[in-house]
Amino acid sequence: MTSADAATDGQGAAALLDRTRTAVQPQLRSTVETLPGSIRRVAMYHFGWEHADGSPAAEQAGKAIRPALVLAAARALGAEEAGAVKAAAAVELAHNFTLLHDDIVDGDLTRRHRPTAWTVFGIPDALIAGDAMSALALRLLAEDPHPASAAASARLAACVIELCAGQQADCAFEQRGPREISLDECTAMAVAKTGALLGCACALGALYAGADEEEVAAMDAFGREAGLAFQLIDDLIGIWGDPERTGKPAGADLTAHKKSLPVVAALTSGTPAGEELAELYSRPLHDVAEVRAAADAVERAGGRDWAQAQAAEHMGRAVEHLARAVPDLAAAGDLLALAEFVTRRTR
Amino acid sequence: MTSADAATDGQGAAALLDRTRTAVQPQLRSTVETLPGSIRRVAMYHFGWEHADGSPAAEQAGKAIRPALVLAAARALGAEEAGAVKAAAAVELAHNFTLLHDDIVDGDLTRRHRPTAWTVFGIPDALIAGDAMSALALRLLAEDPHPASAAASARLAACVIELCAGQQADCAFEQRGPREISLDECTAMAVAKTGALLGCACALGALYAGADEEEVAAMDAFGREAGLAFQLIDDLIGIWGDPERTGKPAGADLTAHKKSLPVVAALTSGTPAGEELAELYSRPLHDVAEVRAAADAVERAGGRDWAQAQAAEHMGRAVEHLARAVPDLAAAGDLLALAEFVTRRTR
Repeated sequence: MTSADAATDGQGAAALLDRTRTAVQPQLRSTVETLPGSIRRVAMYHFGWEHADGSPAAEQAGKAIRPALVLAAARALGAEEAGAVKAAAAVELAHNFTLLHDDIVDGDLTRRHRPTAWTVFGIPDALIAGDAMSALALRLLAEDPHPASAAASARLAACVIELCAGQQADCAFEQRGPREISLDECTAMAVAKTGALLGCACALGALYAGADEEEVAAMDAFGREAGLAFQLIDDLIGIWGDPERTGKPAGADLTAHKKSLPVVAALTSGTPAGEELAELYSRPLHDVAEVRAAADAVERAGGRDWAQAQAAEHMGRAVEHLARAVPDLAAAGDLLALAEFVTRRTR
Repeated sequence: MTSADAATDGQGAAALLDRTRTAVQPQLRSTVETLPGSIRRVAMYHFGWEHADGSPAAEQAGKAIRPALVLAAARALGAEEAGAVKAAAAVELAHNFTLLHDDIVDGDLTRRHRPTAWTVFGIPDALIAGDAMSALALRLLAEDPHPASAAASARLAACVIELCAGQQADCAFEQRGPREISLDECTAMAVAKTGALLGCACALGALYAGADEEEVAAMDAFGREAGLAFQLIDDLIGIWGDPERTGKPAGADLTAHKKSLPVVAALTSGTPAGEELAELYSRPLHDVAEVRAAADAVERAGGRDWAQAQAAEHMGRAVEHLARAVPDLAAAGDLLALAEFVTRRTR
């Protein structure tokens, strides 16, 4: 299958992700295996390679979207994918460090259909394992003899700081009332928490392809815009996703009073339905009927339409940035396929 | 004052630390000020530059031993100190990231005579600020145009992983019974938790001076051995330190059942006094008399003498390594002064 085919075929992205896992997993795993004993055990569990008791497991270790973006960006700019495998693994390590710590901070109990690491190993060990995984990501880049490694390392470190800012903002929003968050703040949080690392993944691929500053910036902007579109779709799924496909109860984000983008759009709409939603968000939602009423209020306040329109707009901007980085869009087929995959996914 | 004078004069080390703070603090502070808003606030508080409410403060931001080692190592190998200021600031950032997270993991309430960051800002914000500070340390190095910056960045990242391993082992020891920890394990923990970063500080100074691999390794070994001597003395102070000078109650480490090096030496001594100590450690120590009995048991079991002899031995090894790195010991005067300072300090 050529890159151009992949862009027009949902199967293309799935195949691309499979191929990425095959290409990156040996590097990822051998890098994780350099961690000291007890830390390694937490990391091996988190990635789904071991059960809690240390016996081998073969769980799905995530979709590998970020490493796929690194490799696809490198290929789109004419580099051999093999040269960027360490960068791809580093981005996946950084992503998983944030998952380990986010699960602690958010008190989440399950991740990839398994108990989260902190519930299995305790908060101290999961926190320390996350710390080590963050340093491991930057070490892998810093030790890579590739000429782009220093610039990539600096960029990934800057991105980790941005991810922290996004997670911090997300936590702060939880403490604030339903009318106290502006749509701009909420969008900035989503860019920092989700867009930044997708952008960094694309930028690292470009750096490893020897791209100039402008191309790297355009690739970063592509990833950020696609990442924001991805977050908007993810937020829609959190409200209207099919429980059978998402594995979560209907309207799970509403029950949790999550201030996701469509919700904040509704709350700040100045409409009567927005007021209704604020009232519903001021107390627990007791039953399915109330959750449905909240979803209806988001929809009537225009939150659903706004989020769909925004997702399309950001995907459009993503494609424009991509065209600046890779003038021959046929060569960018895999990147487009990945962007469409993440914004079309239903779980 | 010349370097050679400093080595024989306790005031020399204090002056050196003052000078280091003056040289490094502007870099450290301007780097911390690049952190995003809410994260910056936690970091500024932690360093003693701001009160909890964000108003300016002028607290003592630590003794600056690690940055002083970076600068002294660079000078000892013929480099200009100014060129290594970013490396010195990076090491201090990495150190303070571990303090932020250790305070969470250990549940410690005070640090440098002030409430710890997590007690002021909550665990999520302190955890996230630590994450960002770790990435900031590595970013500062990775972005430094100095030719040694890539090697230094890789080395600091590897060191952070070792620090994590040390902290993880320390936590694991807390869960184990008083007779279940060997002296080798306890020593390895102290090397990872304390020696590794002192060694890394010296190694970074050497790298920034353009030293060859052997000199860098010798500098690292000097810092590690001095760090272990430091930990042994620190552990002795935790048992027999003068409360008026330490600011902690007498025998605070014993009350907390801390498995410090002299304690583990006593517990594994095979002596009747070691058995007595194990018995005392199997239940809370109720009063000053019991704490004194435990201290006496450590002493009679040989833990105090062992720790003092070990501290001297490791300082001796430190000096041997230093002589390999810097054959003209007069040029190494500041490093010796710092090593003697940390192993002679009484609080």
